[in-house]
Amino acid sequence: MKIVLDGQGGDYPEQAVLGAIKAVNKHKDLEIIICGKAEEINKVLSDNYKGDKITVCDCREVITNNDIPTIAVRQKKDSSMVKAIRMAKEDDSIDGVVSSGNTGALLTASLFIAKRIKGISRPCLAPSLPTAVDGKCFVLVDCGANADCKPANLQHFAIMGSCYMQSLYGINNPTVAILSNGQEKGKGNELVKETYPILEATPSINFVGNVEARDILFGNYDVVVSDGFTGNAVLKTIEGTALCVMKMIKESIKNGSILQKIGGLLIKPAVKKLKSTMDVNEQAGGTVLGVDEIIVKAHGSSKEASICRCIEQTMQLANNNILARIKEDLSGLVDLEDNND
Amino acid sequence: MKIVLDGQGGDYPEQAVLGAIKAVNKHKDLEIIICGKAEEINKVLSDNYKGDKITVCDCREVITNNDIPTIAVRQKKDSSMVKAIRMAKEDDSIDGVVSSGNTGALLTASLFIAKRIKGISRPCLAPSLPTAVDGKCFVLVDCGANADCKPANLQHFAIMGSCYMQSLYGINNPTVAILSNGQEKGKGNELVKETYPILEATPSINFVGNVEARDILFGNYDVVVSDGFTGNAVLKTIEGTALCVMKMIKESIKNGSILQKIGGLLIKPAVKKLKSTMDVNEQAGGTVLGVDEIIVKAHGSSKEASICRCIEQTMQLANNNILARIKEDLSGLVDLEDNND
Repeated sequence: MKIVLDGQGGDYPEQAVLGAIKAVNKHKDLEIIICGKAEEINKVLSDNYKGDKITVCDCREVITNNDIPTIAVRQKKDSSMVKAIRMAKEDDSIDGVVSSGNTGALLTASLFIAKRIKGISRPCLAPSLPTAVDGKCFVLVDCGANADCKPANLQHFAIMGSCYMQSLYGINNPTVAILSNGQEKGKGNELVKETYPILEATPSINFVGNVEARDILFGNYDVVVSDGFTGNAVLKTIEGTALCVMKMIKESIKNGSILQKIGGLLIKPAVKKLKSTMDVNEQAGGTVLGVDEIIVKAHGSSKEASICRCIEQTMQLANNNILARIKEDLSGLVDLEDNND
Repeated sequence: MKIVLDGQGGDYPEQAVLGAIKAVNKHKDLEIIICGKAEEINKVLSDNYKGDKITVCDCREVITNNDIPTIAVRQKKDSSMVKAIRMAKEDDSIDGVVSSGNTGALLTASLFIAKRIKGISRPCLAPSLPTAVDGKCFVLVDCGANADCKPANLQHFAIMGSCYMQSLYGINNPTVAILSNGQEKGKGNELVKETYPILEATPSINFVGNVEARDILFGNYDVVVSDGFTGNAVLKTIEGTALCVMKMIKESIKNGSILQKIGGLLIKPAVKKLKSTMDVNEQAGGTVLGVDEIIVKAHGSSKEASICRCIEQTMQLANNNILARIKEDLSGLVDLEDNND
């Protein structure tokens, strides 16, 4: 198993290297190539690693969060992100890419360099989200790559989301629901109403109908399909509400009686655990689905542990052949034109 | 001040009557007409009320949650909901209507009977939502009445939302933001991108740009504008996430150490307060904006206290002339055709 890590672009480049070290120490058959400024990476390596499973690919440019994605990907050819994806594309022995860089640039580079899987109209960004059921996640596709969508896009998101849940969590026949404003068939905006019968007729997925946003966090759905604008709003509302509720509990305890203050101290471990569960970034990385490489987006502020988790996620997706699964499920569709609409 | 209460349609008709009694007892200049089955209403009244400020309008039909809105409104002419709105429309001395019945039917009846305000393309449903700042609310327009919207609709939601925050909370020059997938100008789906310059050019509102869903709950925005599909998803995600977080805290405490269990008991009052703050239904009722009567939707499961609150909300909106405000702000728009698109 060989994975390329974009060692620049995140907030803590040295943590990316430490995450790679942690991963190769845990997995004996893993090799990692780190793309980035060689002198910086080598310094962290020489201080922390003695093995031979990590190599460095020197890149002199960095794509930052202030860069405009399309321009950066076109112009910064010697950036760690562009080189990491190009390397994966050109070398068949490489199994996937992890990057904590600019999300828009990563999507653009994935599309331009790794290229769409034949038959996929639009790639999407797939985050694993926590639920109230301990250890159970679901995937929300799309959560932001495509603000305006057509029914064919949503059908592809559904197929890719299913393959993702099978590959990453080993869920057989994952349930797929479409996000709507009511649970009954017939509810929805024009897009949802047009997409519903298409999902019903898609052979490879286990479509269970509409789901309302209030029900997605309780562990009953594996894949929730949405256009990227609404999906993004839902994702960010989950983050904002969780933060808000925790802030309110804290304030309420702070302003409460002395007994409440003591209570607040006693439940701190519970709140801390919750905070990490609800922190979208501490969960699995977002995966770019629909391009012909496995590309996992770690959060920009990822440290050692989450970089390591994203590397392991890439391994898991590669071991379970997510790309082959997606291609097989797409081949079941009647219309396999390479339509980019 | 005279208000009509739809006494049927909610889950607890007798609570509606008790809510009316509570309201007239609190407000000496208030009269209420309750529409519904006279024998049932009179029974509750005779057991609980001695005054003369409540009268009953006998209605033999009820619109239930299983009714299809357009059909029910057309066919159930003797329903408490239809009669309540018709009465308000026909009698100028009536200031507003409160109903806890079928939301779709209430919107339909509002549109068909109370009629649109001239210049408003589409009425919308406006809920007041809690924020992390104690006592501060914001309004999300639209939150569900219109799944597919055009820029003109969103412009009208912005104007009506501003008038609502001024009338209900006395906020001067309320800030208006449009929900988008990024804060920078230029972010958004097609609808948001088209609407942005229109909101910038709307004279009566204080437009502050895009807002991301994660930021709406922290008290920095008074009016958040959205199409009804995304608004509905956001509203229900807030509800679901708040419930989920509280469930997780509970479980985590339950499965935690004995100290955590004690802590959980001690913070119960804080959690209870939070629960009621985050309970969208315990906040103000949803107001139907854009029709030529003040119509407030109480939650279906409303009891005495929340019916009384919705009656007081209607009084407040009437006292502050929300309808006249909306008409005045609309008159500032260049295009005042009665376009229903």
